[in-house]
Order: sequence, then C-alpha cells, then structure tokens
Amino acid sequence: MKEAYIADLKPGTSVTTTFLVRTKERKTARNGSAYLDLEFQDNTGTIKGKLWDCDSAQLNFEADDVVRVTAGVEVYQGNPQLSLRKIAKCREADVDLADFLPHSTQNPDELFKGLLKRIQQMSQGPLQSLLLHIFDDPVVARKYRQAPAAMSYHHAFIGGLIEHVSSLVGLGDRVCDHYPFLDRELILAGLLLHDLGKIEELNFTRGFSYSTRGLLVGHISMGVEMVRDKMREVPDFPPELWNRLQHIILAHHGRLEFGSPKEPMFMEALVVSYLDDIDSKLEAMLEQYAADKDRPGDFTARSRPLGRELLKPPSEPAPAPAAAPAKPGTLKF
Amino acid sequence: MKEAYIADLKPGTSVTTTFLVRTKERKTARNGSAYLDLEFQDNTGTIKGKLWDCDSAQLNFEADDVVRVTAGVEVYQGNPQLSLRKIAKCREADVDLADFLPHSTQNPDELFKGLLKRIQQMSQGPLQSLLLHIFDDPVVARKYRQAPAAMSYHHAFIGGLIEHVSSLVGLGDRVCDHYPFLDRELILAGLLLHDLGKIEELNFTRGFSYSTRGLLVGHISMGVEMVRDKMREVPDFPPELWNRLQHIILAHHGRLEFGSPKEPMFMEALVVSYLDDIDSKLEAMLEQYAADKDRPGDFTARSRPLGRELLKPPSEPAPAPAAAPAKPGTLKF
Amino acid sequence: MKEAYIADLKPGTSVTTTFLVRTKERKTARNGSAYLDLEFQDNTGTIKGKLWDCDSAQLNFEADDVVRVTAGVEVYQGNPQLSLRKIAKCREADVDLADFLPHSTQNPDELFKGLLKRIQQMSQGPLQSLLLHIFDDPVVARKYRQAPAAMSYHHAFIGGLIEHVSSLVGLGDRVCDHYPFLDRELILAGLLLHDLGKIEELNFTRGFSYSTRGLLVGHISMGVEMVRDKMREVPDFPPELWNRLQHIILAHHGRLEFGSPKEPMFMEALVVSYLDDIDSKLEAMLEQYAADKDRPGDFTARSRPLGRELLKPPSEPAPAPAAAPAKPGTLKF
Amino acid sequence: MKEAYIADLKPGTSVTTTFLVRTKERKTARNGSAYLDLEFQDNTGTIKGKLWDCDSAQLNFEADDVVRVTAGVEVYQGNPQLSLRKIAKCREADVDLADFLPHSTQNPDELFKGLLKRIQQMSQGPLQSLLLHIFDDPVVARKYRQAPAAMSYHHAFIGGLIEHVSSLVGLGDRVCDHYPFLDRELILAGLLLHDLGKIEELNFTRGFSYSTRGLLVGHISMGVEMVRDKMREVPDFPPELWNRLQHIILAHHGRLEFGSPKEPMFMEALVVSYLDDIDSKLEAMLEQYAADKDRPGDFTARSRPLGRELLKPPSEPAPAPAAAPAKPGTLKF
Amino acid sequence: MKEAYIADLKPGTSVTTTFLVRTKERKTARNGSAYLDLEFQDNTGTIKGKLWDCDSAQLNFEADDVVRVTAGVEVYQGNPQLSLRKIAKCREADVDLADFLPHSTQNPDELFKGLLKRIQQMSQGPLQSLLLHIFDDPVVARKYRQAPAAMSYHHAFIGGLIEHVSSLVGLGDRVCDHYPFLDRELILAGLLLHDLGKIEELNFTRGFSYSTRGLLVGHISMGVEMVRDKMREVPDFPPELWNRLQHIILAHHGRLEFGSPKEPMFMEALVVSYLDDIDSKLEAMLEQYAADKDRPGDFTARSRPLGRELLKPPSEPAPAPAAAPAKPGTLKF
Amino acid sequence: MKEAYIADLKPGTSVTTTFLVRTKERKTARNGSAYLDLEFQDNTGTIKGKLWDCDSAQLNFEADDVVRVTAGVEVYQGNPQLSLRKIAKCREADVDLADFLPHSTQNPDELFKGLLKRIQQMSQGPLQSLLLHIFDDPVVARKYRQAPAAMSYHHAFIGGLIEHVSSLVGLGDRVCDHYPFLDRELILAGLLLHDLGKIEELNFTRGFSYSTRGLLVGHISMGVEMVRDKMREVPDFPPELWNRLQHIILAHHGRLEFGSPKEPMFMEALVVSYLDDIDSKLEAMLEQYAADKDRPGDFTARSRPLGRELLKPPSEPAPAPAAAPAKPGTLKF
Repeated sequence: MKEAYIADLKPGTSVTTTFLVRTKERKTARNGSAYLDLEFQDNTGTIKGKLWDCDSAQLNFEADDVVRVTAGVEVYQGNPQLSLRKIAKCREADVDLADFLPHSTQNPDELFKGLLKRIQQMSQGPLQSLLLHIFDDPVVARKYRQAPAAMSYHHAFIGGLIEHVSSLVGLGDRVCDHYPFLDRELILAGLLLHDLGKIEELNFTRGFSYSTRGLLVGHISMGVEMVRDKMREVPDFPPELWNRLQHIILAHHGRLEFGSPKEPMFMEALVVSYLDDIDSKLEAMLEQYAADKDRPGDFTARSRPLGRELLKPPSEPAPAPAAAPAKPGTLKF
Repeated sequence: MKEAYIADLKPGTSVTTTFLVRTKERKTARNGSAYLDLEFQDNTGTIKGKLWDCDSAQLNFEADDVVRVTAGVEVYQGNPQLSLRKIAKCREADVDLADFLPHSTQNPDELFKGLLKRIQQMSQGPLQSLLLHIFDDPVVARKYRQAPAAMSYHHAFIGGLIEHVSSLVGLGDRVCDHYPFLDRELILAGLLLHDLGKIEELNFTRGFSYSTRGLLVGHISMGVEMVRDKMREVPDFPPELWNRLQHIILAHHGRLEFGSPKEPMFMEALVVSYLDDIDSKLEAMLEQYAADKDRPGDFTARSRPLGRELLKPPSEPAPAPAAAPAKPGTLKF
Repeated sequence: MKEAYIADLKPGTSVTTTFLVRTKERKTARNGSAYLDLEFQDNTGTIKGKLWDCDSAQLNFEADDVVRVTAGVEVYQGNPQLSLRKIAKCREADVDLADFLPHSTQNPDELFKGLLKRIQQMSQGPLQSLLLHIFDDPVVARKYRQAPAAMSYHHAFIGGLIEHVSSLVGLGDRVCDHYPFLDRELILAGLLLHDLGKIEELNFTRGFSYSTRGLLVGHISMGVEMVRDKMREVPDFPPELWNRLQHIILAHHGRLEFGSPKEPMFMEALVVSYLDDIDSKLEAMLEQYAADKDRPGDFTARSRPLGRELLKPPSEPAPAPAAAPAKPGTLKF
Repeated sequence: MKEAYIADLKPGTSVTTTFLVRTKERKTARNGSAYLDLEFQDNTGTIKGKLWDCDSAQLNFEADDVVRVTAGVEVYQGNPQLSLRKIAKCREADVDLADFLPHSTQNPDELFKGLLKRIQQMSQGPLQSLLLHIFDDPVVARKYRQAPAAMSYHHAFIGGLIEHVSSLVGLGDRVCDHYPFLDRELILAGLLLHDLGKIEELNFTRGFSYSTRGLLVGHISMGVEMVRDKMREVPDFPPELWNRLQHIILAHHGRLEFGSPKEPMFMEALVVSYLDDIDSKLEAMLEQYAADKDRPGDFTARSRPLGRELLKPPSEPAPAPAAAPAKPGTLKF
Repeated sequence: MKEAYIADLKPGTSVTTTFLVRTKERKTARNGSAYLDLEFQDNTGTIKGKLWDCDSAQLNFEADDVVRVTAGVEVYQGNPQLSLRKIAKCREADVDLADFLPHSTQNPDELFKGLLKRIQQMSQGPLQSLLLHIFDDPVVARKYRQAPAAMSYHHAFIGGLIEHVSSLVGLGDRVCDHYPFLDRELILAGLLLHDLGKIEELNFTRGFSYSTRGLLVGHISMGVEMVRDKMREVPDFPPELWNRLQHIILAHHGRLEFGSPKEPMFMEALVVSYLDDIDSKLEAMLEQYAADKDRPGDFTARSRPLGRELLKPPSEPAPAPAAAPAKPGTLKF
Repeated sequence: MKEAYIADLKPGTSVTTTFLVRTKERKTARNGSAYLDLEFQDNTGTIKGKLWDCDSAQLNFEADDVVRVTAGVEVYQGNPQLSLRKIAKCREADVDLADFLPHSTQNPDELFKGLLKRIQQMSQGPLQSLLLHIFDDPVVARKYRQAPAAMSYHHAFIGGLIEHVSSLVGLGDRVCDHYPFLDRELILAGLLLHDLGKIEELNFTRGFSYSTRGLLVGHISMGVEMVRDKMREVPDFPPELWNRLQHIILAHHGRLEFGSPKEPMFMEALVVSYLDDIDSKLEAMLEQYAADKDRPGDFTARSRPLGRELLKPPSEPAPAPAAAPAKPGTLKF
C-alpha cells in the first residue's frame, strides 16, 4: 500500500513512498555535474523533483515506471519540490495502478454489471445478441472498465468511459420514455457502442496518450470495425439494422468538421449524438467547477471544451445545485 | 360549419364552401378582359382559382379575408383548380379560424392546464411567483395557446408553441431526474419562458408572418422584455436569479451566429439550449416523414432544417418506431 | 441493335426505336382524359414524350425499364418531343445497357487489364498480394469496370471510375519518379483503392443514384471495410502497413469538412489526396468545356464543382490545348 | 497629492509615494520564510515589488487598495523592482483614483457638457426628451464620464466611453451633412446610446473588469433595458420610433457573430454600426502607434484588434499625419 | 430623338420607336413556321416581343443593336408584349446610347468637373501631379464618366462610378475634417483611384458585362497597373508614397475573402475601405427602396447585397428621411 | 574561413571564430553593472552569449553584423552558452554570408543553369522571349539564386526559392507528359514566375524578414508588376497570353482567403496552384521529419504549416522512404 500522497506532502519533512514517473531528463548543472530533473504523479496530483549527482547512482527506471523514493520536501519558486535521496523501480507485482492515475469515484465493476443487466433486459434479437457478444469478450470487458472517455476534455480518468456510458444509458432510457416514437433499443445500442473505439484509440495504462493507430484511424472508424467483427458472428444480423447502427456510430460527432464522416440522418442517430454532447459538456463543466472551486469571483477560468468562462453555481445552500459535489463519478485527481 | 375541405375536392364537381384568401391578383387576359388570380387555403391544404371577367362583379374581399365561394373544380396542368362563379366575404362572426389554419392535433387548452399544474407543483418562491404572474396574464394565456413555434421549420401551426413547450417541460423533468445536480426549477422556468417572445414576434391570426417589431427586435430580446416587466412586479425577486434566468433566455439559441447575443455559461443554460434543439429537430424530422410518406425510396426529400435527406423509419411493424404516426401533436395541414 | 439515337431525331419525322424510361407520370388533361408524361434517355441525351389517352392502352413498363416505342417527333416550346403511338417493355435479354447510359470513350476492359499489369509489376509482398486478392474478385472486377467515379461532378458515366483511377495510376508513377523519397507502392495501392467503396455507394445499372447504404455510410468507410476484409485473407499483412493504407483511404478527401474523418498525416496520404483532387477537377473542367463548346463568349457557364466560370481554351490552332477534344475518356453523353 | 510616478522611478534611489495594488501573493522563500510578491499600478504604468519576511509585519491591505509605500528601487532581470520597507493602506478620502488608472487626456466634464449641448440643439420631440431623461439621471451622468469604452481593445481608460461617443457625435453630424436623406436625430440618438450598457457591463473603479451581470447579459441587452426604462417615462413615445432605436442598439455590432442578435435593417442602423467600427479601429491604431513609437522598423507589433502589423505614419514632418500625437484623447498610461 | 419609351406603352395601341435588342432567338412554332423571340430595352425598362414568320423577312440586326420597330402592344400572361410588324437596324450615327441604358440622374460632366476642381485645390506635389496625369488622359476622362460602379449590386447604371466617387470625395473631406491626424490628400487620392480599374473590368457600351480581362484579372489589379503606368511618368514620385497608395487600392475591399490580396495596414487604407463600403451599401439600400416602393408592408424584399429584408423609411412626412426621393443620383431605369 | 560551427561547440572548451549577431541587448546586473545579452547564429544553429561589464569594452558592432569572438563555452539551464572574452566586428570583405545563414544543400548556380537550359528548350515565341528577358536580368539572376521560398513554413533558407522552382519545373514536365491537353509552356512559365515577387518581398541578406513593400503589397502583386515590365519589352506579346499568364500568377494561392485576388479559372492556372501546394507541403513535411528525427515516438511534433502531427516514415530499411535523407535540397541549418 502507498504510504503517502502528493496532495498531503508538507515542506520541511521527509517522505518515503511510491510515485509514477511522468518525465525524466538528465541535465548538467553549472558546476558541470549531471542531475536528473523529474516529474512524479499519483492519483492526487503531480510534483517535481531533482536527483543531484545522478551519474554516481545506479538507476534502473524510466518514464512511466513506478518507483519508490526517499526524499526531502522543499520549496522552489513557491512550489513544493522533492530533493531525492533514494529512487528505485518497484516490481510490477507490487504496483496498483489505481494509486497513480486519476480515476472515477464510482466503481467500474459495478457500472459494468449495470450495463450488462440493462442489456439482459432488452428484447431478444440481433441487437441484444450483438451487445452480449461484445461485452462478453474478456478484452473488451477489461478495457471498457479502465478507459478514460477522452484525453483531456472530459472524463479524462480511469473508468471515465464506463462512467460516461452508464450515465448516457440512464439518460437515454428517460428520453425514450418521453418520445415513444424512438427506437429505444437502437438508441441503447448506439450509446453503448458509440465510443467503443476509445479502448484502442487511447493508451491508458501509464498516463493517457493516443495510440499510433488511434491517431491515424480514430475511434470512430476503429469502433465501427470492432462492432462489425462481432456483428458477423451473430447469425442473420439484418443488413438494414447494421446500416442504421453503423451510421449512428459514424455520425455521433454530429458534424463533418468534428470528424464524423456522415451527419445524423434519422432520429435515433440524432438523439445519440445530442445526448453524448450534453453528457460530455456537463461533465466538463463539473470538472471546471471542481478545478476552480478556490478561485475567487463568480466565474471559473476559461473552460477549454466550452471556450468560455463559466458562471459558478450559487454558493447559498440552495437545494438543487448543492448536489453538485455529490455528483456521481467526479475525479479524485 | 364549413361544408367542404380542399383535400376532398373532386375534379368535375361543383362546390360551395368557405376558404381563407391567401393571395389575390388582378390580371389581364389575352382578350383584354380582366380576371382575378387567387389562392385559397383551409386547414387541409391550398388550391388556386380564377374569377373571369372580374370587373363586372361586385367584389368586397381582400387577401386574408374568409370568403364563401361557389365554383367548379377543374384541372389545370395536372392540378385541381377552381373556376369561380360566386365569391363574397363572410362575416367575421361566422368564421372559425381553426377551419383555415393548420393546427396542432393536441388540445391547446389541455396543454395549457398541464403547464399551469406543473407551475403550481413548484416550490413557493420567486420563480413560481414570476411564472404565475406571466401565465395568469390573459393576453399571454390566449396567445400562448395559439402561437406557432416557428414560421416554417418546425411546429409551424396553431398551437405549435404550447405543444413544443409542453414536450420540453416533460423532457426537462426527466433530464433533471437523471442529473440531480441541476437546478430543476430554473430549467423549468427557462423552458417555459425561452420562446415567450414568439407570441409577439409572429402574426398568426390569418396565416403566419413576422411582425414588424418581430423582424427588427426578435423573440429573444422581446421575450426578455416581457419577462422583465413581470419580474419587476414580483416583490424582492433576487437579482442573481434574474441574471441567470435572463441569460438562459438570451443564450437559448446556443451560438452567436444563431442569434443568441451570449452563449450558455452555466449548466442550466446549456441544458435548456440543447433540449430546445432536440425537440425542434425531432419534430422537424417527424414533419418531413409525414410530408414524404408517399414518396418512393428509403429517403425523404432534403429536410431544410436539417440540411440533408432523412432515412425513413423501417416500414416493418417494429414495436417502437411504429408509434411514429401516433405521435402526439402532428399537424393536420 | 438500337435503330435510332435521341441526338439524331428530326422534327416532323416518325421513329421506332428503344429508350430507357427515366420518369413516368400519369396526368389529367383539360378535357378530363388521362395521359402519360414521360422522359426517355439513351447514351446521346434525353427527350420528353406524351402518350395521350393512356388509360385505353395496355401498359407494362415502369421507370428504369427499357421500352420500344413508335412515335412522331414534334416540337414543343422550342424543344423536340415525342408523341407516342406505341410503347412496350423490351425483354431484358434484348437490352444492351451501354446503349442507354453515358459511358467512357475508353474501353474499360483494356483499362482493367492495364491496372492488373501494373499490379503485377509491383514487388512481391503484402501490398501486391492484397491488390491481387481484390482485383481477382469477380464481383469487384465487374463493378470496378462499370462504376462512375461520381454522381455528377466528374466522370459521371459508365467506366468513369476505372478511367479516373487509370489516369491517377499513370500520374502517380510520374510523380513518384520525381520525388524519390515517396513510397511508390503505397501510393499506387492508395490510388487503386481510395474510391473502391464507390462500387457499392452508387447504383449504376439503370441511371445513377446513391444506394441506401451508400448514403448512410459513404464510400470512404465502405471502401475501408472492403479492403480490410481482403487484407485479413493475406497472411501476415503487417499491421503498420495496414494503418498507413487505411489512413490513406480515410484521409483522401483531404479535409474533415469534405467527409474525411482524418486529414493526411504523412507524405503518401497527402500525395494521394492531392492527385485525386487534380484529376477530378481537370476532368470536371474538360466536361464543362465540352458542354459549353457552342456557347458564345470566352467563358463557360458556372462550373458547379469549381464554383466559377471557366476561361475556354484559345480557339486558334495552338499545338498543346488543341488536344483537348482528343483527351482520352471524355463522355459521349 | 501623489509624490512620485512609476514612469519616473530611478534604480538606486528610494521612494515614498502611493500606488494601487494590482496583485498580492504570499510565497515561501528558499530559506522557509514568507514574503509578499506584489504588483503596483499608477496612471503611468506598473511595477513589481517584494516585501520580505512579511509575516513579521502588520498588514492591512488587499488587492485593489491604494497604499502608501517606502521602498528602494532595484533592478531584477533587467527591470526595475521595489524592495519594500513600509506599506500601509491609504484612507479612501485621501485617494484620487485618477492618479492610479489610465485616463483620457481630454476633460470628461467638458465632453459631457458638449454632449448635453448637442442634445439641447435637437428639435423638440420624443427623442430629445428621452435623451434628456437619460443624461439628466445623476448615476448615468457620473458613470458615463468615467467608464472606459472597452476592456482592452480601444479607449480602455477612464473617460474612454465619453471620448469615443463625443468623437462619434461629431463624426455623425458630418456624415449626415453629406447624406441628407439620413434621419440625423435618430443617428444622433443611436450614437449617444449604443454603448450605454457599458457603464454597467464593466467595473472601472479600481482597474477594469467585467461585472457578473455584464458577462452574463452583455452591454447590448443591458443598454436596451436601461433605455427602455427611461423611454417609458417619456409620454407617448412613438412605438415605431422605439422599434427603430432599439434595433439600432441591438444591431450596432453589425454581425451576429460579433454578438448583435440582429443585423442592421435600415440606413441609420447601418451608419451607426459603421461609424462605431471606424472610430474604434482608428483609436486602436493610434494606441498601437503610441505603444510602439520606440520600436525600430516601419511596422508596429501585431495589433490585436486589427489582427495584423500596422505601417507606422511617415516620420518626415508631413503636415497631416504629424498631427497624430496631438490627437485629442490619447491615454496617458 | 426617341419617340416613345417602354414605361409608357399602352396595351391596345401601336407604336413606332427605337429599342436596344437584349436577346434574339429563333424558335419554331407548333405549326412549324419560324418566329423570333426578342427582348428589348430602353432606359425606362424592358419588354418582350415576337416577330412571326420571321424567315420571310429581311433581317439585318443582332443582339446589342439598336433597332427601329413598328409594333402592336399586346398582353401576354398579364404582361405587355410587342407583336412586331417592322424591325430594322438603326444607323450608329442616329443612336444616342443614353436613351437605351439606365443612367445616373446626375450630370456626369458636371461631376467630372467637380472632381477636377477638387484635384486642383490639392497642394502641389506628386499626388496632385499623378491625379492630373490620370484625369487628363482623354480615354480615362471619357470612360470614367460612363462606367457603372458595379455590375448589379449598387450604382449599376451609366455614370454610376463617377456618382459613387463624387459622393466619396465629399464624404472623405468631411471625415478628414473630423480626424485631423489623417492624411487628407492620400485619402482623396485613394478614393479617386480605388475603382479606376472598373473602366476596363466592365463593358458598358451596350448593356453591362465583365470583360474577359476583367474576369481574369479584376479591377483591383487592373487599377493598380493603370495608376502605376501614370505614376512612372511623374518625375520623382516618392517610392514610400507609391507603396501607400498601391496598398490603399489593393486593400480597399477590406478582407481577403472579398478579393483584396492585402488587408488595410494603416489608417488611410482603413478609412478608404470603410467609406467605400458605407457609400455602396447606402446606395444599394436606396435602390432597394426605390424598387419596392409599391410593395405593401413595412419591409422590402430581400436585398441581395445586404442579405436581408430592409425596413422602409417611415411614410409620415418626417423632415429628414423625406429627403430620400430627392437623393442625388438615383437611377431612372 | 570560419574556424568553428555552433553545432560542434563543446561545454568546457574555449573557442575563437565568427558569428552573425541576431540580437544584442544591454541589461543591468543585480550588482548594478551593465552586461550585453546576445544571440549568435551561423548556418548550423544559434547560441546565446553574455559579455559582462560591457561598458568597459570598446564595442563596434550591432545586430546583423558578423563578429569575431573569443569565448568560453558554458552551460546555463541545460543549454550551452558563451561567456565572451573578446568580440569585434569583421570586415565585410572577410565575410562569406553562406557561413551564417541556413542554405540549400543543392548548388543554386547549377539549379539556375538548369532553369536556363529548360527555357532554351522551349519553342521560340513570346513566352520564351519573356522568360529569357527576365532571367537574363542580372539583378533577377542574382536574387533568384539567393532568395528563400518563404519566411518560415518551407524552404526557408538561402537558395530555397530556386530549389522549390527547380523541383516544380521537373514535376510540371512530368504532369504535362501525363495530360497531353495541357499547355506545357504556359505551365512552365507559370511555375518559373509564380513566386518571382519573393525576391523583393523578402529581405535575406542578414536573416530573413519581410521588406516594407513586401508586407504592404505582397509577392503576388509585386511579381505581376515585375513580369509586366519585362513583357512590355517583348515586341507584340499577345494580350490574350498576357491575360492568362497574369491570371496564373494572381491565382496561384488557389483561394481568396490565402491572398489570391482571383481563383484559378482555367486548367493551367489550376495545375500551377496545385503543384506549388504539393511541393511546398512535401518540403515542409521533410523539414519537420528532419527537425524531429531524434524525438521519440511514431509522430513528429505538430507541424505548423500542416496543422497536425505527422507520422514518421517507417524506420526499417524499406527501399523507397529510406531515400528521405538523400532528398535533394534539404537545409543544413
């Protein structure tokens, strides 16, 4: 178990604990000796550190490794910084990555069970078969629980994808209750599968980045491929249904200039695209509020996904917006 | 009571009934005599007509009047057309405009009662007071039940505004059930008031058109004025709340280029803007499906509000989309 | 064999020959009798026609059928028009569709042989294997020779796709001769496959239209699927190569707003996108010049793909541009 | 009276004088002791300062306060910086804010008198009554003389709004002399009122910032409200005239994407929008010239409002452009 | 002298007079005989005409010729139309083109004298020399008085260019009176020369069209060339001044997307661009008002240059806008 | 001859050699003494330097001078830096600017000979005469060999223009071999002349910058002027040919928003514009690959001209892309 977290370090103390190495750079000091300029991360934040005279040390770690360090906590230019005395790579077996990456406050396993349950409630037929095929695949089942929903704009944390999709599935059912002419099961399938490609577009085992294939192909086309491969294992999947489902995935960014090669051409495709947008933007707003909760004034800093400052919720104990901190699934980072 | 409707006229027969005059133009025939080129309307469609030798007749009507006609039904260039024998203005008292304008299939009075009931269920406080003030105003109460929601893109029929808002209120409650951190009553107020200015922006007693003030000022600014006048009659309406409510109305088109002078800066403003967009676009799609229900092929003609052809719902008796024709509130026109 | 072509009909004569029916509409004449309003097509143009008193005739044809007609050639509003005396559907077996659709002036079979030969000249390896797999597929081989390259903007005729690709392959080799650092075989594969999806996106057996799947999914995503299915039959196709090839197809429209979900991220993808654009635009210009060759003045009408009027080539017998009419592959339509 | 100004401080000297505190931040030095990192402002510029060992001092000021300091003037990284020995808040009564904020070189009181005089020269009628009502309001009269015309792009100094409007009124009269068909008094009213909302949109008593209501609602809608409230106090203000005047204010940014909910629909609205644009851009250019007057070369740095570098006026003593420094109303900052 | 004008023709009468032939097309009537379908123009409007049995007549005219006709005035589809009995080309010497093209209500010769006088009032120096050189050129002097200012958007009539420039010169002097820091003579030169290229970009001797060189090169680049040729004849024209003047001409459309290859980079270039825009738009509005003066309602039809409907001036005898019909220089067409 | 190059300096050594001074700034150290903060450049890179106590030295150089220095090579913040002991301006006669500016790896004189030879192979006629006139001009001949092709996006090195044009000429011939209907000599002339204005738009004797006239007028209009002046010296140059050639130069940026005042209106103009774009973008990609060759990962940093990250060529010894480093004409910088 991890002994100490970055958010809790006090200047003037010493600490021995584990961190994920974000960056590692060898530099030369004025006196000509070499030192390491490092940045560490755990699920509470980041901190810089220096290892002086590094060439005299036996070093066995690289960026993205988890290391155990002993260090003094100092202050440099007003910010805490570590002066390292010992640093060594941890054994993989001893590492729980959940300690080092920001992650959902909700339990991904529970969310996944919830999605499976919802699929089982569907009417029997090709859509249900397809979804069961996909979510029973052990690789999908594992990655779907871990993947973030985006690199940075919203739900950028372990479990972000499943948290986003779980919210969408609940929202989609309510919207279909309201509009009885919508094909509920097609919308459900669209919501469950629209971002499936994210589990391969992004790397998320040691920090978040795009995979090479992710940058070249993108999660929309990758997701279509993954679903299509499973679809072909479902006997007699109706071609018209496949056309519709594929279109929903292709069109879910809503506009060509957002990377969808087709724009929504029927009601269910339109609804999936809008709900995805609402849920992402609301989460981005909540994350901005959390980041700026100590910032003075009525507005947050400029939200990059929204492109503008946000008015903060009223601080008086109003019944409804007071629930904001209790929102399911904000990140702990 | 109106004896016959345009949709039912048979070529080769005679008819005596009432119509609304859409256009009236005096032209000169080849033989030098004058005739009237006319277009008529009732709530089932439109038809052209000609009154030959019109200068010999005593005529007492203008465009936008309701007239009683006796005419033969002929065919001209493949379309039915009236050859008029008698035409005279009806007395206002004998006219039920509902016979001549397309209108909602839902009962506006019932919808209005529903909105009032929903307002009464709100917690007591300034928002409820404001809404009661507005909806108790007899002019608002009358016009809000009649106004279309738009000139042509969606809900362009008598009762369209209240049908659109009633749908939004139901949808908004469901969305707030899903996102407990939203301020439900602020969203409710925003949905009820976002298009209030439409009741003055549009003329809708004899066909639909923009009012002069509507074209110069627009329903967004007009609605803000109307709400503000009522707000000032509510004692101690909190200024912060007014800022939020005014922002929701100003921002409900979502983007500057769609005529909103501000873009949504907090969660409730964003949600009102998105829900308005979804409900309008779904209605526009339903109207396109209805218009093109006899068009061969899998796609409709290009939908002007969407900017593309729409894939029609599957024709097989699938459980969910089969409900499309049963959708509450499609237009009869 | 077809006895007469539309381009050759003379007013005041009679004709008996075959046409493709483009549209067929039943209308009512002033005297109350029904007539058919028809439009016919062959590979030299289109002509309208009327069959009076149609209800008294035994009719067994629909739009898209090929019919044998006997008719008088008249003039209506300055244009030739057929007054039909006999009209009956032809047997499929008697129809050569090449008589009724505009088609390339080049021989698609020869062009196809040329492409195969070029593939055989490639170095042995996964790209060559993949291309052979695809072009040996009898369905592909047949449709690739027939498909137009676009609905209307350029090469909109039978054989247009293979004419466009054959030009691109020749051009690509020359450009790779010039830039030795380009991966010639990757560019070759990209050019051969970039529009493969067109053979399913478009219907082209009886006039040109989008298929339902074509409108919903588009030739870019469809082509990727088709290539991927074949790729998986090639043993050990390198994943990095697949990433590159897939990216070239996805990115060949060059910009998101033109429907590519990714923009070119390496040199070969950029080159394929540019060459496709050049060849399409030059062909569109040639077609505009052909269409407006009798139009007075120095400029053509506004070219829709270019968005502007075009300066015509100089009419003096200049050596180079004089070749324009001799250009390989203009349409006969 | 203020003893010394930032622009005149000499490294190596000591100073005792007053400044406005722009920012104040407590930091920890390497040796663990706390210090204050400060930035000061007066109407000649800004300077940074440090108060070492700040926890041992009695401090009674915050950002936006005016303080009296005793400090040594040093140089840090090539820039002057204050090393504080004493710092204490001034009494409000002793503070003349004009010493601490950049302000117009013109006398706002004189400019205001000029505007009043111009209003009195108007023909008697509803427009004159409305303007007198507004400019006689003591709150408006005070704020209108102080407000800047914008946050940063042009006239961003105390008195900037009235300087901008005074210039516009003079310009408007000349343009109406030229185009006799323009309604001069409507243009005059539009120019005087188009930016009225700025006096509430911006905070300008201690530095310039947007008010909360300003960011949520914007000066266009706020100005319309303020004018409307006064308009309703003018007996029998003609509704058609109000429509026109309101439209001028709403449309004065000229285009939807610049935040106007309507674009100019008649001549006077068009003229107000253009004149506002010209005067703002010319002022922004003059300010850029002033800021870059010591920059070598023929061009200024990139002007943010214009989006490009500006060619400087010729340096030879040409008669006309030599007047540039003598321009009425440049800022002293 | 022309005996009758199109605007005055009465159905049922005969007429003998002269017209400009706009279009001439030979068609075949139902009975197989040939007829001419013609359109005529004079400076009061246009009218269609038919010459039956045309092959039996000796015809010596083409489109763009002026002809003398004898015809009956009839009505066809509600519009007057000529049934021609005689038609023959006029001798060039007998033709005054002013009778056949719409033209300014102002006297171009007087306007030209005014411009010359203004140039003579300039201070002696290179700018004045350049302007005298240009306006003394007899070809320029002739064409500058005839050219329209645009093909269709504003001032599209004979004398339109000089009317537009004369207005701009007056406006520019007033604006320079207001902003003393502007270089008045540079602005004056810019206004006089910005559209000089129009005299070669447009053909305007027999109707308005683009010249071939005009479409390929455009009036901006053509005007720069024309001015530069004259500039080189002025001894010692300062290169810096030429840079500025050339930039003003290049930048006068204000934005790249409007065809200016550079955007205004100093004050005089900005002012020329804005004044040109104001004067053009106001004239376009006046022309729209004139065209729609009999249209019912408060708004005009959609103005193409403005992209929206325009609110008409109030009809009450208000002092200022009542001047609108008295505006100098509206077209008689 | 230059003794040492920046790319080869080793920390901890001393050096005596020559550099170009990029920037020179006098600053005050904490101890009150003055020092010079300098940046140097040669054709292998840049390095910063400091001259302490500079007021005690005799200094005779400015920015853009070439100086001889004696200095110690130190490390500051991880980067090498010079601590100067001696610095003095070199005599112009001793300076070979090629040592100090990045330049083509190809020989500009050889490239120029190649262009001349290609011109001599053209058919005799006005185009050849014009080209010979231009390239025989000694000023053009000198500057055309030196100019970079752009400020920073591609070919931003001495000899960049001629390298870019030489590549284009070769490419153009190949493309004309492929499309026989193109006017090869017009394309050749267009490629040779499209960027002629660059030799005056840019300063490139001491670092690269825009000339004053370059920023105000731009290389497109400047090039047209230069070509036109020469064209007028060619007897009987056909006006239609001049229209076409001028249009090619004006339109070579392809779109109005890229600064072309006209968009390509015939085939040769379109081809010149596309080929210019391809060659520039490929070169920009090669330069990005060179700059990022040591960057880990599959992608480069974001390429500014392309607006996105680039996938690097595969590192395996593949035959074709391995040629990338051998590409003719990469920069040495």
